[in-house]
Amino acid sequence: MGRSAQLHAEVLVHRGGIVESRHLVRCAVVAAGGEPVAGAGAPGGAWADTSGVTDVTSFRSSAKPFQLLPLVERGHADQLHCSEAELAIMAASHSGSRHHLALVRGLLERIGRTSADLACGYHEPMDAESLEDVRRDPSLRSPLYNNCSGKHAGMLALAKAEGWPAAGYERLEHPLQQLMLRTVAECCGVAPGSLQLGVDGCSVPVFGLELAAMASGYARLAAAMAGGGDARALALRRIGRAMVAEPVVVEGTGRLATDLMLAAHGRILAKSGAEGLLLVAEPATARGIAIKCDDGAMRAMGPAAIELLVALGVLSADEAESLAAHRRPVVADAAGHPVGWLEGRVDSLATHDIRG
Amino acid sequence: MGRSAQLHAEVLVHRGGIVESRHLVRCAVVAAGGEPVAGAGAPGGAWADTSGVTDVTSFRSSAKPFQLLPLVERGHADQLHCSEAELAIMAASHSGSRHHLALVRGLLERIGRTSADLACGYHEPMDAESLEDVRRDPSLRSPLYNNCSGKHAGMLALAKAEGWPAAGYERLEHPLQQLMLRTVAECCGVAPGSLQLGVDGCSVPVFGLELAAMASGYARLAAAMAGGGDARALALRRIGRAMVAEPVVVEGTGRLATDLMLAAHGRILAKSGAEGLLLVAEPATARGIAIKCDDGAMRAMGPAAIELLVALGVLSADEAESLAAHRRPVVADAAGHPVGWLEGRVDSLATHDIRG
Repeated sequence: MGRSAQLHAEVLVHRGGIVESRHLVRCAVVAAGGEPVAGAGAPGGAWADTSGVTDVTSFRSSAKPFQLLPLVERGHADQLHCSEAELAIMAASHSGSRHHLALVRGLLERIGRTSADLACGYHEPMDAESLEDVRRDPSLRSPLYNNCSGKHAGMLALAKAEGWPAAGYERLEHPLQQLMLRTVAECCGVAPGSLQLGVDGCSVPVFGLELAAMASGYARLAAAMAGGGDARALALRRIGRAMVAEPVVVEGTGRLATDLMLAAHGRILAKSGAEGLLLVAEPATARGIAIKCDDGAMRAMGPAAIELLVALGVLSADEAESLAAHRRPVVADAAGHPVGWLEGRVDSLATHDIRG
Repeated sequence: MGRSAQLHAEVLVHRGGIVESRHLVRCAVVAAGGEPVAGAGAPGGAWADTSGVTDVTSFRSSAKPFQLLPLVERGHADQLHCSEAELAIMAASHSGSRHHLALVRGLLERIGRTSADLACGYHEPMDAESLEDVRRDPSLRSPLYNNCSGKHAGMLALAKAEGWPAAGYERLEHPLQQLMLRTVAECCGVAPGSLQLGVDGCSVPVFGLELAAMASGYARLAAAMAGGGDARALALRRIGRAMVAEPVVVEGTGRLATDLMLAAHGRILAKSGAEGLLLVAEPATARGIAIKCDDGAMRAMGPAAIELLVALGVLSADEAESLAAHRRPVVADAAGHPVGWLEGRVDSLATHDIRG
C-alpha cells in the first residue's frame, strides 16, 4: 500500500577534529492501516546485512502500553479507580524518583501487595536525589526503584483481578504472561507464534519482532488516541492520553521521551526501550515510528531521533532546537571541559505516502 | 607489499532467542616493515561507508607506550631509577586500585610534584575497593584515581627533566605535547601534520589516525620487543617488556588487556583505549593489531578481540577458552539471572602474508 517506510540515520561522535565513533540507526514508519513491512531490513549500504540478522529486535520497555492494555480493557483499572498518573506509571520506565516510588507504593497498597511481591529486582535509580538516598542508606534498596516497578505493580493488579496466583507471575507459562504475549502480537498485527522470546531486564518475558511491526503497534495506538474505534481502541486511547498527560511520570526529568513529549506540547507519545529503542505515536497522522540504534547505545537516541522526527515533520525546527541537550549532547573530559559532541544525520529518506 | 590486512568482526547481543543488538568491529593487522595501508577502510559490505567517514579514529590510551617513549629514550627514566612497574603505570589505563595509586604517588614524590599538579581531572575508579573508599569518603577524590594519572605523572617528569614549565603541560602548544605529537607520528609512520587533533578524556591532546597506522606503530613496538634495532627500538623494548611484565599495572584485575596478556603468558602486549579500541603487539611475528568497535562500545571488545586473535593465530583455542568471561560475557537481568550473552564472530579474513 506504500503506507510504510524505512529510514536510516547515523550518529557521529566528534572529538575535536576527529570522528571517533559512529552509530547506525534504523527507523520504521507505519501509518495506521498499513501492513507491517515484511523484511524491511537489510536495505544495502551501511546497513547491508552479511550475517542473516534481520530487523527483528526486542520490544523491551516500548511494549509497556500494550502490556498495560488488558488491565484497562478488562475494566480492572476502573475498579481500582486508577488516575492518569497511575496509568502512566504502569506504562513507565521511570527514574526512581520519590514521586515515581509514591505512585507505585500507592498501587501496591490498593491491591494488598508490597514491594516484596515485585519480581523485577533492584537496580540503582537514575534520579539524582534517589541515588543519593540509596547510597547513603543501602537498606532502602528495593525493587520499587527498578524502572519497571510500575509495570510489575500493574501485572500484580491484573493477576489479582483475574484470580491468578501472584507467585510466578513473571514466568512465560503464567496465564498473565501468555496474555501479554497475545496482546502485544495482536496490537502489532503479527501472529503470537511469530514472536521471538527472551527475558527482559526486569525478569518478565520480552518479545522479539520486526521494527516495522513495533511501528505498526504504535500506529494503532496513535489512531486510537485520535478518537473513535472499538473497545480496544478506547482502552488504548486512555493509556496513550494518560502517558501524554504525564510525561514526567513516563520516564523522568531530563530524559529523552519525557522531553520529546514536553517539546511537542502533547502532539506525540514517546516511549523508550533499553538497548537503543524509541517508539513514537503521532495521533494527528495516525503514524507509528520505531527507532533502533543497531548497537544498542542509548547515547545515540537523542541525536538520531530528533533529526528523524524533524525529517518526518513530527517536530518543528524550533522544537528540535529546544531539545539541544538531546540533539547535540556534549562530550566532556574528566575535568568537565567540553571536548566533543554527538551529531545525528538522516542518511536516507523515503517518505512516500507515509503522511497517510 | 601484501604485509597488511583488514579484517572484520561483529558482536551479536543475544537475549534468549532474540538478537537484540549488533556491533561492527574493524581490525587492521600490520607486520613490521609493512607500510600503513592507505584507505584500508570502507571495504564494502556491512562496513561500506556512505558518509565519507574513514578508518581514522582516536588513538586514545592505546598511544600511551609512545607517549612514554621520550622519557625513556632521553635517559630521564634511568635518572629517576624507574622500576618496570613504574614504567608500566606511566603507560597504563589503570583501575585506580590502591596499588596503582601508590605507584603514581611514588613517582610524583620523586619529582617533587603532588596530585594537585595533575591536569587529568577526577573520575570514579573501576577498582571495587577504591570505589568504596571514595564513596565512603568523598574528600579522597583526586586526579590520582584518573586512569591516566600515571601517564600524567610521566609527563610531569618529562617536563621537569627537560626544564619545561609544569603549568600548561596538558596544552597542545606546550613543547611537551608537541613532542608527544611528533613521537606518535614517527612511531606510526605518518606525517605529524596528518594527525587529526582532539582532546582526550584526561585533557591532553589526542591524535586521530587510521587504524592501520596504529597497527603499524604496534608492529614497530613488537619488532623492538623481539630485540635488536636502534636506540629508539631499545627504548620501546624496555617499555613493551615492562608492560608485559606488569599486566595488572597496565589495566587491572579482571580487565581485558590485563587478562589477554596473562592468558598469552608473555607472548603479547595488549593495551586498550576508550571508545572501543584495543591494540596488540606480538613480538614473535613482529605484528601489530588494531581493533576498533565502530560505535565505541567497550562491551564488544572482549568477544570481538578474542575471536580475531584466535583467527590470527595469536591465541590458542585453549587460551581463548580460559578467557570465557571476556569472550562470551553474560547479560543478566536486574535480579542477577543470566538472560543473554554476547557472541563475537569473525566476518571476513584475509591473512595473506601477514605472518610476515
